[in-house]
Amino acid sequence: MLIHELTPMQCADALQRTNIGRLGCSKDGQPYIVPILFSFDRERGGVYGLSTVGQKVQWMRENLLVCLEVDDIHDKNHWQTVVIFGRYEEIQDSPKEAEARQRAQTLFERRSEWWLPAAAKVASRERHAVVVYRIHIDRITGRRAARDVGRAAD
Amino acid sequence: MLIHELTPMQCADALQRTNIGRLGCSKDGQPYIVPILFSFDRERGGVYGLSTVGQKVQWMRENLLVCLEVDDIHDKNHWQTVVIFGRYEEIQDSPKEAEARQRAQTLFERRSEWWLPAAAKVASRERHAVVVYRIHIDRITGRRAARDVGRAAD
Repeated sequence: MLIHELTPMQCADALQRTNIGRLGCSKDGQPYIVPILFSFDRERGGVYGLSTVGQKVQWMRENLLVCLEVDDIHDKNHWQTVVIFGRYEEIQDSPKEAEARQRAQTLFERRSEWWLPAAAKVASRERHAVVVYRIHIDRITGRRAARDVGRAAD
Repeated sequence: MLIHELTPMQCADALQRTNIGRLGCSKDGQPYIVPILFSFDRERGGVYGLSTVGQKVQWMRENLLVCLEVDDIHDKNHWQTVVIFGRYEEIQDSPKEAEARQRAQTLFERRSEWWLPAAAKVASRERHAVVVYRIHIDRITGRRAARDVGRAAD
C-alpha cells in the first residue's frame, strides 16, 4: 500500500463531498470526539456547524483549538482522510454577527440533509439552547492510501 | 428525534461490531484525530491497535490521555456513537510484556481485515517502525438517536 499526501485542492474537494465529520476538542489534555454535520465554505474558507449546548460546546468555549477529521474508508487498502486544525468561533445572535449567521444559514440550506439539532430532544424531552459556530481553518492536511499494484505481496 | 443513552452492554456490543474508529490525542491543547483499525478486548477490557511511529504516536507518548470514537450513522435520525475516554499504553517488545503482545496478536488475528500498517509505505517507500498499543478504558459513554414516531414534525 502506498500513502500519498493530498494537495490543498484535493482536501477541499473531500470537504465538499460530505457533510459528516468527527470534531475533536480537548480539556486539560483529555481529547473528546463527536460526529457532526458540517458545511464547508469553499468560497470564503471555514466550516460551519450547529450544536446544542452540551459538553462539546462547553469544552470548545474553554479551549478554542479543535480538529475536524473527514474520511472516506472503503477498505484497508483504499481510504482517504482529511484533517483540519482550527479554532472554534461561536457566532452570536447579535446585529454585529448578522452577516456571519446569514452565511451559515445559506450554507446549511445547501445541504442535502438539513439537520437542526435543536429539534433533537433527550429522552426527558428537555430542550437545549442551540449555537451556530464556525471553525476557522489554520491548517489542512490529507492522505490517501491506494493499493501498490506492482507489489501485490504488500 | 429522541436521544437515548446506551447501557455499558450496548456500548460493548457497538465496539465489538466494528473495528474502525477515530482516535483522538492532543498536544498543548490541540486535538488531533485519525481513523484507526482496532480490536476490542471484551473479555479483559481495553482496545488494541497497531501504528507506525508518526505524529499520532509521538503525541500519545507525550500525553497518554486519548479518546476513541466509534459510530454508526445511517441518516440524521438514526445514528449511534460510542466514546471511550482512556489512556495510551505502548506495549514493548520485551519478555515482560510478551503476554500482552500475544493477547494483541490473538485479537488482531480475529479481525476480518487483518491490517498491518507496517506494510504501508509512504510514496518514498520509506519503512517506519511499528508499535503495538493498548487503550486502557477509563470511561465509556454512548448515545443513540431514533425517530420520535409520535412527533413526526420534529
